[in-house]
Amino acid sequence: MNLLVPGFKGSAVSANIKYQGRLDLGLIASNESAALAAVFTGNEIKAAPVLAGLDRLSRGEPYARAVVVNSGNANACTGHDGVVHVQEICSLVAKEMGITPEDVMVSSTGVIGQLLPMGRITEAVPALVRGLSENGLEAVADAILTTDKVRKTVIRHIDVGGVEVTVAGMAKGAGMIGPNMGPPQATMLSFVLSDAKVDPVWWQGLLERTVSDTFNQITIDGDTSTNDTVLALANGLAGNKKINDVQYGEPFEHVFKELLQDLARQIVMDGEGVTKCVTLAVKGARTGEEADRIARIIAESPLVKTAFFGEDPNWGRILAAAGRAGFPLDQGLISLSFDDIEIVRMGMGLGKKAENQAKKVMAAGEFKVVLDLGLGQEEASILTSDLSTDYVRINADYRT
Amino acid sequence: MNLLVPGFKGSAVSANIKYQGRLDLGLIASNESAALAAVFTGNEIKAAPVLAGLDRLSRGEPYARAVVVNSGNANACTGHDGVVHVQEICSLVAKEMGITPEDVMVSSTGVIGQLLPMGRITEAVPALVRGLSENGLEAVADAILTTDKVRKTVIRHIDVGGVEVTVAGMAKGAGMIGPNMGPPQATMLSFVLSDAKVDPVWWQGLLERTVSDTFNQITIDGDTSTNDTVLALANGLAGNKKINDVQYGEPFEHVFKELLQDLARQIVMDGEGVTKCVTLAVKGARTGEEADRIARIIAESPLVKTAFFGEDPNWGRILAAAGRAGFPLDQGLISLSFDDIEIVRMGMGLGKKAENQAKKVMAAGEFKVVLDLGLGQEEASILTSDLSTDYVRINADYRT
Repeated sequence: MNLLVPGFKGSAVSANIKYQGRLDLGLIASNESAALAAVFTGNEIKAAPVLAGLDRLSRGEPYARAVVVNSGNANACTGHDGVVHVQEICSLVAKEMGITPEDVMVSSTGVIGQLLPMGRITEAVPALVRGLSENGLEAVADAILTTDKVRKTVIRHIDVGGVEVTVAGMAKGAGMIGPNMGPPQATMLSFVLSDAKVDPVWWQGLLERTVSDTFNQITIDGDTSTNDTVLALANGLAGNKKINDVQYGEPFEHVFKELLQDLARQIVMDGEGVTKCVTLAVKGARTGEEADRIARIIAESPLVKTAFFGEDPNWGRILAAAGRAGFPLDQGLISLSFDDIEIVRMGMGLGKKAENQAKKVMAAGEFKVVLDLGLGQEEASILTSDLSTDYVRINADYRT
Repeated sequence: MNLLVPGFKGSAVSANIKYQGRLDLGLIASNESAALAAVFTGNEIKAAPVLAGLDRLSRGEPYARAVVVNSGNANACTGHDGVVHVQEICSLVAKEMGITPEDVMVSSTGVIGQLLPMGRITEAVPALVRGLSENGLEAVADAILTTDKVRKTVIRHIDVGGVEVTVAGMAKGAGMIGPNMGPPQATMLSFVLSDAKVDPVWWQGLLERTVSDTFNQITIDGDTSTNDTVLALANGLAGNKKINDVQYGEPFEHVFKELLQDLARQIVMDGEGVTKCVTLAVKGARTGEEADRIARIIAESPLVKTAFFGEDPNWGRILAAAGRAGFPLDQGLISLSFDDIEIVRMGMGLGKKAENQAKKVMAAGEFKVVLDLGLGQEEASILTSDLSTDYVRINADYRT
């Protein structure tokens, strides 16, 4: 796929932030001032670039020209120095690009608790800006990766009143994945770029609604990061009629949601040590909140996740996890299936034959588990992963 | 240690419930009717023996003569048949012992969703009862083990008004450990036996208070079981003056709590794949609930637990976990130490030297992590473990 969006350029260099000779500093630039929508982590411990981003958004200037992003260092728990470093990066890049510092957004991902190596970043900025090119966005998508194994990108085209607009996205994230991003509050990082002309208020609302149905509905380890961030830039260069609540919003939103869903799935598929990508759906709940809460408890249960890894349709663990979510349940009403293989009906196992069929479903690597509580009409769905020996190895070694 | 309690006998046999030739059916018997206190799992999905136990307690007969316990099969999610099986076991044992079925309590642990092999259990009961002996309690402590590696017992003696009374306990539990037992509501199992003469209402209250400070404050994987049960029997044969709220209660409670704390620690130390036993204390919280909730989130964070396994004092993960607990925090007020090594002060890391010292603390295998939020005076503490590659291996294989 060519990640080309009219009016956007990208560049990436190696600044040796944590490792030598690996792309770790990226820059996205828009030829024109672009409407900016943003959501950040709901974690109370917020990284310096998140604090700076929130401050920026609070000043009501939803426009930007550039996004600088580094991997290898989260610039989290770095105190006042950390925030000053964000400001310095904005100034350095702005000066080199000939724009104002307020036009520059910063994101970071990596180890918590270390100051950024500002000397090496300062040295790298001129080459970073010189390297900007229309073909450079994929290099940015590479520069943001940490424990990820593969680049995560997606691109779609939408007809807006006879004009074709482009929307493209990139993301990173493999561990510390339990996003819980609020308005305007995601270490998953994702950047969405479009040449659409949009109403800025509608653009921010669109991002919030869509993130809550996509990135916020995935979990690998449930560990919400200090740095989760999604930024969406729309520069208007497609020349379409402005998209807002009353015109062209609905079809655009449909595609936008598919795009974020695609990136969210790519994150889970490439999660740390992941061998299974599981859609965990709870239906028959009394309320949406009940369905969502139970789905999350199951999706984050170590015993359920290790059973997924072992390809064991151990439904007892799934029911037991549901039972500790804090909602009254009736065992006798519960059904459970793996794809189209029902293995529990009315609270009772359907035997070895059904389980053996479910085991085959699990071997495929991507499957859906549906738990029907039999209590009501509400449902919720979480995209999750297994818990493997590799997950443990990766995370027992991460800093050393 | 000799697990001898005056007036109590024990016996265990191999009934081939799941494995061949392994002790899996145990019996504890009291020569005299004993005051019974009980707490059971707070999981909404309750095993048949838990349902039967709750029913028994609701009928206000807090006395018992015998406890039958099997490993290898949880008798959970077994519907009406499961409950009938519990009744059948009570009747079989009662008949063989010459007591009434109401005098018999049943507990089970093992795989969820399979009916008990009642034929093999029925065959085994006569030999089980014949085998009762004063020296047989340790065999019961062996028969209740599943993925446990070692037997868990403790015994203490207390002076009650010039009379020495004995309290002894046994426990099992290595996985699906996140007890949340309520009044009168733990697959950890524990049985506490005493020859003390006690007021039955005080005895139940004592068990509830003590469990909430001991077994309910441990977590290995956070997965509250369907079968958690603690039963406490006191047969009065020591001949002490009756213990109740107003006399002898306080010193007895002190020792009783130490005893349950000891068993709780033994469970964590022997947890599935456990290489580290960690006391996770949160202090400086505004409320006890806030401290407890934050301690649990940290104690169950996969990233924190894998860092414990890797002996990496990765404090960023600890702060990030605290930050997702849903309480407002002030990064700049947070301190963190591993035993007496402070590694974070005022939200900032104290550098590599301190971390290297903390790493040495972790290598010892048993240590205390103290997170000070700097917000108030309340505190809470959870006993937890690391998350190892062996935990994953054990649980990816459990049923097969």
